[in-house]
Amino acid sequence: MTYRFHASPRLTEDWRHFRFGKADGVATVTLDRPEKLNPLTFESYADLRDLLAELPHHQDVRVLVIRGEGRGFCGGGDVEEIIGELINMEPRDLMRFTKMTGAVIRAMRECPIPIITAVHGIAAGAGAVVALASDFRVVSTSGRFAFLFTKVGLSGGDMGAAYLLPRVVGLGRATELLMLGDTIDAETADRYGLVSRLVADADLDTTVAELARRLADGPALALAQTKSLLTAELDMSISASMELDAMTQALLMTTRDHAEFHAAFTERRPPRWEGR
Amino acid sequence: MTYRFHASPRLTEDWRHFRFGKADGVATVTLDRPEKLNPLTFESYADLRDLLAELPHHQDVRVLVIRGEGRGFCGGGDVEEIIGELINMEPRDLMRFTKMTGAVIRAMRECPIPIITAVHGIAAGAGAVVALASDFRVVSTSGRFAFLFTKVGLSGGDMGAAYLLPRVVGLGRATELLMLGDTIDAETADRYGLVSRLVADADLDTTVAELARRLADGPALALAQTKSLLTAELDMSISASMELDAMTQALLMTTRDHAEFHAAFTERRPPRWEGR
Amino acid sequence: MTYRFHASPRLTEDWRHFRFGKADGVATVTLDRPEKLNPLTFESYADLRDLLAELPHHQDVRVLVIRGEGRGFCGGGDVEEIIGELINMEPRDLMRFTKMTGAVIRAMRECPIPIITAVHGIAAGAGAVVALASDFRVVSTSGRFAFLFTKVGLSGGDMGAAYLLPRVVGLGRATELLMLGDTIDAETADRYGLVSRLVADADLDTTVAELARRLADGPALALAQTKSLLTAELDMSISASMELDAMTQALLMTTRDHAEFHAAFTERRPPRWEGR
Repeated sequence: MTYRFHASPRLTEDWRHFRFGKADGVATVTLDRPEKLNPLTFESYADLRDLLAELPHHQDVRVLVIRGEGRGFCGGGDVEEIIGELINMEPRDLMRFTKMTGAVIRAMRECPIPIITAVHGIAAGAGAVVALASDFRVVSTSGRFAFLFTKVGLSGGDMGAAYLLPRVVGLGRATELLMLGDTIDAETADRYGLVSRLVADADLDTTVAELARRLADGPALALAQTKSLLTAELDMSISASMELDAMTQALLMTTRDHAEFHAAFTERRPPRWEGR
Repeated sequence: MTYRFHASPRLTEDWRHFRFGKADGVATVTLDRPEKLNPLTFESYADLRDLLAELPHHQDVRVLVIRGEGRGFCGGGDVEEIIGELINMEPRDLMRFTKMTGAVIRAMRECPIPIITAVHGIAAGAGAVVALASDFRVVSTSGRFAFLFTKVGLSGGDMGAAYLLPRVVGLGRATELLMLGDTIDAETADRYGLVSRLVADADLDTTVAELARRLADGPALALAQTKSLLTAELDMSISASMELDAMTQALLMTTRDHAEFHAAFTERRPPRWEGR
Repeated sequence: MTYRFHASPRLTEDWRHFRFGKADGVATVTLDRPEKLNPLTFESYADLRDLLAELPHHQDVRVLVIRGEGRGFCGGGDVEEIIGELINMEPRDLMRFTKMTGAVIRAMRECPIPIITAVHGIAAGAGAVVALASDFRVVSTSGRFAFLFTKVGLSGGDMGAAYLLPRVVGLGRATELLMLGDTIDAETADRYGLVSRLVADADLDTTVAELARRLADGPALALAQTKSLLTAELDMSISASMELDAMTQALLMTTRDHAEFHAAFTERRPPRWEGR
């Protein structure tokens, strides 16, 4: 597989700290240490960061699904494997670690590929932030979120949570969730606007697959730019946003996909999106 | 009619691409091509932009109502009249077009006159963004919103939607609405915070008229400045916002309307607002 | 009582314009002119501003509770005592006044101590903004909010309300509340995300006491930094926020409280937080 703007580095073929698969345009990361609630580790953070950098160069990937094996999505950093190490680390390495975890979240927001997180059971700590940084959170009724950082004596603003959460659920609810670190159930999360689809546990995989299918079959360039604008315009003024929107839309109006919509409409058939 | 800061240009007396009327301080724009679901066209965008620039100079206008004739509010840009033209346009003209549509939305947000949109039936595409940019959305139970841009192969961030929508409904729900482009009903829009008043279809006109009356009879300067601060402070820091609020309020404390409130309170009668 | 970074000025021992008490780490401000609905006055604004500057230097204060005596929380500025004076003031003094009231709200947001407001009955005008600027709003079923500034002919954006309210409840609902100035009940406020805990009137004091206890017994430094990030990152870009989060968390990972969490976890006992 070749790609125009990818040159010397080879794409990684073997991701060792989570299960990685691709099928019909859908890439899937499965956190697969269910016996420890799929903890994030030094290695899995590094692999997530690097996968997110490589993924846009996979021409056969249109959407990324992140899910967890077993009885929950992700319990966050493991107390022994991560916290036990951190409390003995020097500032230099602590900064490397916290910058790496932040880089995962930034890469999720800046990646031109839509990301769906499937949440069943607990999404705690870094697991909750990974879900928060996704474009879509499909949550089953057993799903729970716990931004529990203050409960381990750390800042609730881990990995961008104090930036992202108020912009998703409002400042009042974000304060409650980040300062107290309590667990909320799926229904509460839905009421707060943290849930894209609330489904029965038995329907989680099907719903995620359907949404992934729909996004993978959609107009990839239009979807990528929509995500990019949603991310960028949180930090932009209305006047700058209007300029960016105008230039983006003018460019997209020259694409094959836009012409294809018109052709399909005229011919009364569904459009065949090419992503260009 | 004269106005202190309006000099050579004459105000337009004949708006040809929508119906325009004024009565008792309330200006009304009625999109009136119901047979095509009141589409926005090259001409109606231009007229909306220019009307919004002129309107603050109409001394007899205190509030603007935007509504649609027939079975829905506005179906957005017409596929034949707009998309059919755009797919053959040069970049220069595409940019002119997208900048013009963005200018309509900016003018709505920067206009010192409160804007009410009455939504029954569909508000789709640009129609949904016009509603979104209004100060008040009175929506009847038949009302529906569809930010359907990705469905035509374009960016969901059209005309500022990726800036405005997350600030109204939160980033999660905005992502869902803009990336998927699905239609939501009035009840869902209300739950998301996109609806100012949810009413029965039969009550739409009355509710809009009452709200318009109340705003038209209100303290116009205080209302204009409240709108201006709400718009500007989305893009400002808390420290700058506090300064702006302090200066604004100190100035308003010197106005006749503020003194009138005190006099009316003392005399146990309703205030008579003059808008100065 | 001494404190490392407090030098010549003495802490005030006698606050005359509200009741002030401290017990077990919880400071309480009680607005105590119930016969006039606990109005804010020139003097109580000044005292609030100065108390908020001193409070971080009280080593025995971990949380601040603001409450009102009698049948409501706070009716805002008194019509006679404040508005009656303001309408005759010079610009110089009006600016001093509006900058002072804004300084109270900024100090609330920038104070490293979590602030709980207990709202029963009415929270009107400046009283509603004080509640809005708190970290937690415990509201009983009799609670009501009225951002009534336009009703007195002033800007709805008083004391940062046009900055804060859209970030708590979204732009649509903030527009409704600030432009119209209508009163909303506790249930509506809760639905909008303006309520941290909704309780029966009889349970208000107990709920506030329990939440205050929990915060006072919590990891003070982690809580202070969480509040600081929530406040600062409303005004920051995602990339700057990620840097700030990374540096903050790396520093907190070197604290005694974080090590204490690990020790307590290992020893299967609750952590004893020291706030350092």
